[in-house]
Amino acid sequence: MMPLSDFYSLRPIGYIHSPYKQKFGVARQPGLVPAATMRLTLLPEFTADCVRGLTQYNYVWIEFIFHAVLNEGWLPLIRPPKLGGKKKMGVFATRSPHRPNHIGLSLLKLEKVDTHPAVTLHLSGGDLLDKTPVLDIKPYVSFVEAKPEARSGFAQIRPELAVCWEQTALQQLVQQQLDTAYRLLVEQSIAQDPRPAHQRHKDKIFVLFFGCHDVRFRVVENVAYVLSVVPHVEL
Amino acid sequence: MMPLSDFYSLRPIGYIHSPYKQKFGVARQPGLVPAATMRLTLLPEFTADCVRGLTQYNYVWIEFIFHAVLNEGWLPLIRPPKLGGKKKMGVFATRSPHRPNHIGLSLLKLEKVDTHPAVTLHLSGGDLLDKTPVLDIKPYVSFVEAKPEARSGFAQIRPELAVCWEQTALQQLVQQQLDTAYRLLVEQSIAQDPRPAHQRHKDKIFVLFFGCHDVRFRVVENVAYVLSVVPHVEL
Repeated sequence: MMPLSDFYSLRPIGYIHSPYKQKFGVARQPGLVPAATMRLTLLPEFTADCVRGLTQYNYVWIEFIFHAVLNEGWLPLIRPPKLGGKKKMGVFATRSPHRPNHIGLSLLKLEKVDTHPAVTLHLSGGDLLDKTPVLDIKPYVSFVEAKPEARSGFAQIRPELAVCWEQTALQQLVQQQLDTAYRLLVEQSIAQDPRPAHQRHKDKIFVLFFGCHDVRFRVVENVAYVLSVVPHVEL
Repeated sequence: MMPLSDFYSLRPIGYIHSPYKQKFGVARQPGLVPAATMRLTLLPEFTADCVRGLTQYNYVWIEFIFHAVLNEGWLPLIRPPKLGGKKKMGVFATRSPHRPNHIGLSLLKLEKVDTHPAVTLHLSGGDLLDKTPVLDIKPYVSFVEAKPEARSGFAQIRPELAVCWEQTALQQLVQQQLDTAYRLLVEQSIAQDPRPAHQRHKDKIFVLFFGCHDVRFRVVENVAYVLSVVPHVEL
């Protein structure tokens, strides 16, 4: 007989510090937005010993909790954005956050490890929200986990949007001393077309909350226009 | 301020049925023993809807709990068997089961999905113990997760042992109506050299508990001799 009611109580080993402050605009897969740099800071009990040798790897798995949707539960069927939001797929055939147990898995590039004052991993290509609780870090074992020939179902690379900056937005970048890294983060994120499938036909202004700023943009055909970059205002 | 004490209560979505009845002899990485076929049966609340479209993928991630070592806790430093058991690495630079939260991650080949009477995934190349509780299933997204160029640190493919069957053992296979699949499971498992590093110098007989049988073998230089295959006896 299999037990039917065992629970496992898991505890974060650390938390993510990310420029992504809300779900809208977060890269849909890791690696799509290389400029999305983030830090993972471990809790004090996880000392430098715990990461000894980790820099022999340049990719790491981050297992985390989709904390922003915990209250939304899970769904057996999901409409993946890649399918235009029309077709439904089983939750286990997607990487949707609306899954049982709400565990996420992302392969991130490991740029650097600091061990003082707290153990901190510097990661790039991230798709994680700020304050994401992390459950585990694992090295990427390429001889086992690199399967370029694997069938990838409907998850394919999509064509990107071209990104143009309006003069106002460019001036605001300078005025607010936002660096090239921030500009790249915005460009790469918008290029992935973060708009929900059902809103793509609309002539609507979208807002990304990245870092401490709100970035407004609009899409006309396959070109995205960045309209403004202003300090974030809580609505 | 980051919360310092949040816990997440996770519940298995199903359990593994595997020929590996104890830790000794389990493949050290998934994929090394293709003959290790296993089933993942989901609990009744996870209906056929939950796996709709999953067969578009031929590899799936299985996230699970290392249930057999839960009582052993975790260690900041690990002696990986690949390094001969001498050098210590940080737990997050290894795939050791003795890790905080005891979460495992394996990439398995998806052979078939049954949806009746319960949803059951037929998997091969598994490295999971019988009765392993599974927390999640995710599709393998090759355009994001296949990084053949990634640095793999010390985790490399090892040379295999040659495997020879003693006449007695071959006869026992036939007498006990064990099929070719079982023979391959034994051969591929022993070829990976399951002996602990610190016992390799010894002229010792090792016992694998696979399925319902005990398989005895001995290694002389780089050749493993299978000595007997008899019904399992609990010690």
